[in-house]
Amino acid sequence: MACVFGVDVGGTTIKFSVIGEAGTICERWAIPTNAADAGASIPADIAAQLVVKNAELAQTGEAALAIGVGVPGPVRDGMVERAVNLGWSQMPLAELLHEATGLPVTLLNDANAAALGETWMGGDETCSNGTAVFVTLGTGVGGGVIVDGCVLNGRHGCAGEVGHMPVKGHDTRQCGCGKTNCLECYCSATGFVKTANDLYDAAGDPRGFTEGKEVFELVAAGEPLAVKARDITVGYLADGLASIMCVVDPQEVIVGGGLSHAGDLLMEPLAERLAERVFPAVRGRYALRRATLGNDAGALGAAYQAFQLLESLAGEE
Amino acid sequence: MACVFGVDVGGTTIKFSVIGEAGTICERWAIPTNAADAGASIPADIAAQLVVKNAELAQTGEAALAIGVGVPGPVRDGMVERAVNLGWSQMPLAELLHEATGLPVTLLNDANAAALGETWMGGDETCSNGTAVFVTLGTGVGGGVIVDGCVLNGRHGCAGEVGHMPVKGHDTRQCGCGKTNCLECYCSATGFVKTANDLYDAAGDPRGFTEGKEVFELVAAGEPLAVKARDITVGYLADGLASIMCVVDPQEVIVGGGLSHAGDLLMEPLAERLAERVFPAVRGRYALRRATLGNDAGALGAAYQAFQLLESLAGEE
Repeated sequence: MACVFGVDVGGTTIKFSVIGEAGTICERWAIPTNAADAGASIPADIAAQLVVKNAELAQTGEAALAIGVGVPGPVRDGMVERAVNLGWSQMPLAELLHEATGLPVTLLNDANAAALGETWMGGDETCSNGTAVFVTLGTGVGGGVIVDGCVLNGRHGCAGEVGHMPVKGHDTRQCGCGKTNCLECYCSATGFVKTANDLYDAAGDPRGFTEGKEVFELVAAGEPLAVKARDITVGYLADGLASIMCVVDPQEVIVGGGLSHAGDLLMEPLAERLAERVFPAVRGRYALRRATLGNDAGALGAAYQAFQLLESLAGEE
Repeated sequence: MACVFGVDVGGTTIKFSVIGEAGTICERWAIPTNAADAGASIPADIAAQLVVKNAELAQTGEAALAIGVGVPGPVRDGMVERAVNLGWSQMPLAELLHEATGLPVTLLNDANAAALGETWMGGDETCSNGTAVFVTLGTGVGGGVIVDGCVLNGRHGCAGEVGHMPVKGHDTRQCGCGKTNCLECYCSATGFVKTANDLYDAAGDPRGFTEGKEVFELVAAGEPLAVKARDITVGYLADGLASIMCVVDPQEVIVGGGLSHAGDLLMEPLAERLAERVFPAVRGRYALRRATLGNDAGALGAAYQAFQLLESLAGEE
């Protein structure tokens, strides 16, 4: 069985997987990220792991054939344009890993990798040729767009940065990107918690929530202000998703990240509101679902793109 | 020189062109659209024109090699899903034209065709491999997204339907699609005129504008309420475009349709406002420009996709 490496480079950990063509994760391990010296040692750290592991795999007759790497920043032509968490700027990661391992290498942004992984392996059936939109609602709002089974990367590696779509907010909020009132100011876990705290503060009943989970516990109990905070958040999110759907027209819309753990308390009102806001011609013709792969999504997506690379290389021969 | 047919099927006229590989329009003609009997005769009407013309062309040794057709509705797998203006539903246009002419046929939505045509031939240099967003501000708001030189068609042929992105409006407006407060309620020529009329009515100075041009004449003269109407419209449009750009990350944003004829009176404030609202990582790294091809855009885009089809057929051999 052909297999590849799926690598997910994060700010604190680098996760490695050996993944088969059917999406089976045969093996996984991790090392800490060494961000010292502007992340200069990271490429060699990754390469060292892959060289050793591939020697092992080769002894059992199943060496990995390619490397897919998800990184926390925009990528273009095998180059990581920048990755603030790692200290990278214009890092030629694909070239460095190829030189060290001899294997073909493909890079993708980590949110795009997760989107691709979820589209490939996260649904009830493999949807490897799908068109999908993925959003992750965590500290921020990330996202990725998959078109016919391929990552939409964009001209500058910034496609799928849906967290920074402008929204007309009910107040003014500063976004980490430098703008005000981005989608993530309202639909991240952080934004949701702020909306809830603001409502309780205004009602003279300050709660000092720090996590979305606390608010969702009150939503489950039917507390009106918590429900209101949820509905406000769902309203922004549905409008944002409906906008993305007008641009891309996907078959699948996948919601991941911390807030998605609220399950039906988030997804049911979201489904209802989204159905009202989408272009009528697609109503009832897409699937809205939660992400299912958790931390494996990125490695799986990176591996899937590595398989795509192998296929295109085979086509060239 | 290889050439193809570019056909643009509209509700009142069907436009035909013979187009060379470099985007030269060698010949153009038109026939009226016969919408009688749910548009049943249209495929045969088109085929008849193409058969006769190709016999003529063959005599001079330059028969067209393929047919690209832009139609006013969503397309999928060679089928026009529906075209309200023509009375079509599930019309197998590609198959019918192929049977009648023997030529390979490719279909695309008319706004997508215009987007592809503008991306290919509308700029200072041919940008045939480009990633671009095209919006047209006319009676409604249409659009198309081009990724690496190909139309983004979407799962149901509805990608690029950016006129129906939800916006938080300053009032409630009914859209023709059945929803309220779509982008086109505010950024079409119709929406702009309504905004202006509302402002003048509220000031006790009703004007009864019927065309965007009339309002832009007052903008040119610096009349405050007309300028305000322009700025409101530009605000919605910039937010909408910035949202699309977060999803697609294009190198080019092209604005066409009636309102774009206002030139700098529209484009200058739009450029300024858009720069504020886009994701900071792409600021200054895209081009915003007016459409230049007018009525030829659709035929050119259809022809370009026909050349792409020929290339992929050659690759299969």
